[in-house]
Amino acid sequence: MKLVTVGTVAFDTIETPYGKAERVVGGAATYISIAASYFTKELGLVSVVGDDFPNEELKYMQKRGINLDGLQIKEGEKSFFWAGRYHNNMNSRDTLDTQLNVLADFKPKLPTSYRNAKYLMLGNLTPEIQAKVIGQMKSKPKLIVMDTMNFWMDIAMPALKKTIKKVDVLTINDEEARQLSGEYSLVNAAKAIHKMGPKVLVIKKGEHGALLFYNGKMFYAPAMPLAQVYDPTGAGDTFAGGFIGYLVKANSTTFENMKRAVIYGSTLASFCVEEFSIARLKRLKQSEVNKRVKEFEKLTKFTM
Amino acid sequence: MKLVTVGTVAFDTIETPYGKAERVVGGAATYISIAASYFTKELGLVSVVGDDFPNEELKYMQKRGINLDGLQIKEGEKSFFWAGRYHNNMNSRDTLDTQLNVLADFKPKLPTSYRNAKYLMLGNLTPEIQAKVIGQMKSKPKLIVMDTMNFWMDIAMPALKKTIKKVDVLTINDEEARQLSGEYSLVNAAKAIHKMGPKVLVIKKGEHGALLFYNGKMFYAPAMPLAQVYDPTGAGDTFAGGFIGYLVKANSTTFENMKRAVIYGSTLASFCVEEFSIARLKRLKQSEVNKRVKEFEKLTKFTM
Repeated sequence: MKLVTVGTVAFDTIETPYGKAERVVGGAATYISIAASYFTKELGLVSVVGDDFPNEELKYMQKRGINLDGLQIKEGEKSFFWAGRYHNNMNSRDTLDTQLNVLADFKPKLPTSYRNAKYLMLGNLTPEIQAKVIGQMKSKPKLIVMDTMNFWMDIAMPALKKTIKKVDVLTINDEEARQLSGEYSLVNAAKAIHKMGPKVLVIKKGEHGALLFYNGKMFYAPAMPLAQVYDPTGAGDTFAGGFIGYLVKANSTTFENMKRAVIYGSTLASFCVEEFSIARLKRLKQSEVNKRVKEFEKLTKFTM
Repeated sequence: MKLVTVGTVAFDTIETPYGKAERVVGGAATYISIAASYFTKELGLVSVVGDDFPNEELKYMQKRGINLDGLQIKEGEKSFFWAGRYHNNMNSRDTLDTQLNVLADFKPKLPTSYRNAKYLMLGNLTPEIQAKVIGQMKSKPKLIVMDTMNFWMDIAMPALKKTIKKVDVLTINDEEARQLSGEYSLVNAAKAIHKMGPKVLVIKKGEHGALLFYNGKMFYAPAMPLAQVYDPTGAGDTFAGGFIGYLVKANSTTFENMKRAVIYGSTLASFCVEEFSIARLKRLKQSEVNKRVKEFEKLTKFTM
């Protein structure tokens, strides 16, 4: 196994100004793994669902090359459920309902075949579970990427900082970078976060692009301006999946490859938001990915 | 004269989280002209001040090559005054005071030497005055760039649209693009605004960069991430001045040159915000401009 991803596999009910999708497939590990599967077929997923999770969705993931030996299926229990409503600007949302269900006492257990993976992706989850997964690795991965959110900063900052200390790359949004560091300027926030452990910081700014801070060097990739953003759910996870997926494929963690990884992450995310849930990703072709990467090049290229 | 700029020359009192500056030099035409003077020395300014405006500030502008034959100085009257307070995030501000003074009955009068200029920059002012300036040109300029703001959309939309119809390039921020077009997606907003007249639209997104829409083609330039933003006042005007200044120098309005113009505009603006008022611009060296342009290239460059 080259890449191991831990995170939620879940149901979402989503309302946007364009409509409502009830109990559709969601979860950080779902989006991450599907996005990463465009770059590697040696990837395993660590998560938990109830017996209510549709078998055909699991089959689809397996068809994409995602190994599910690390996915626990709890008989007689229910999958994690989240419901949210996006505001008109799509940049903010209200959580309407959260039902932890199987997640309440989730104890990740990595199959033996996962424990030597060189790339580890910690999707958004409690920082304790993320740390446990790191602890179950037999050898230190070449790269650990961690995603998290303001929720853990609000209620579990000490545990969060303990996990952050162990990772190479942290991916958060701009407000979260400010909250975590106490610095308003993202340049200063990056300096403070480097000191917490991660030598690489990726700040996801949604429609405003992504900023990569790599050992004092900076790279700023725009987001693709889109005619319609249908559902932003999972865009950050899809970004993370494209990001680490590309690094696995390149088997390299240089600045140049991290830049490319940001572009691939942005590319995958730009498709994700075009439809509800994983619908757009499900019918996404490799040729479309390649085409949009070229559009990204055009969008940003200039000569002085 | 190659470039004519109309706009305010004024006093500002500015409060930011970093301090307060009382009755410092401000005004759209001030920032635009100073920024443009890094690219051309054949530029004239159309505006009005009272006899309270410090002579040494006018001398400074003239030293930068800015022709002031079009600047009316009203004896016994007071210059335009604006006071504002920025919020902690520096992205929003409250207007505390506006005193029109000499601006209340400003009738622009272009000196003969201005009337054949190939480049015309309409800084933020009432759309009627902007239209009057266009009307005083002897021959149609090669390029008319217009800056405006939400204030005119709120109180004078019909007049605004009449002026917009006559210009080649419109520079506004993202919220203004949405308000003007009624479209949330900036891609769709650009399409709608193209139909209003301007074949080029530049959307200024502050710390999130700038988007150039050019006849259906797109270019997205990031803003330089800065350790400290001291005072955002005039950043948009400085951007516009660097933008049109470069086009005057290149004497070209191709897509490739407009992209470079966006980078130069962003570069000048990134200096402007580093200190209060025009303080940073006043001691800005050409070598610093060239160096930051190279940093912009590094910030965005990637190869796939």
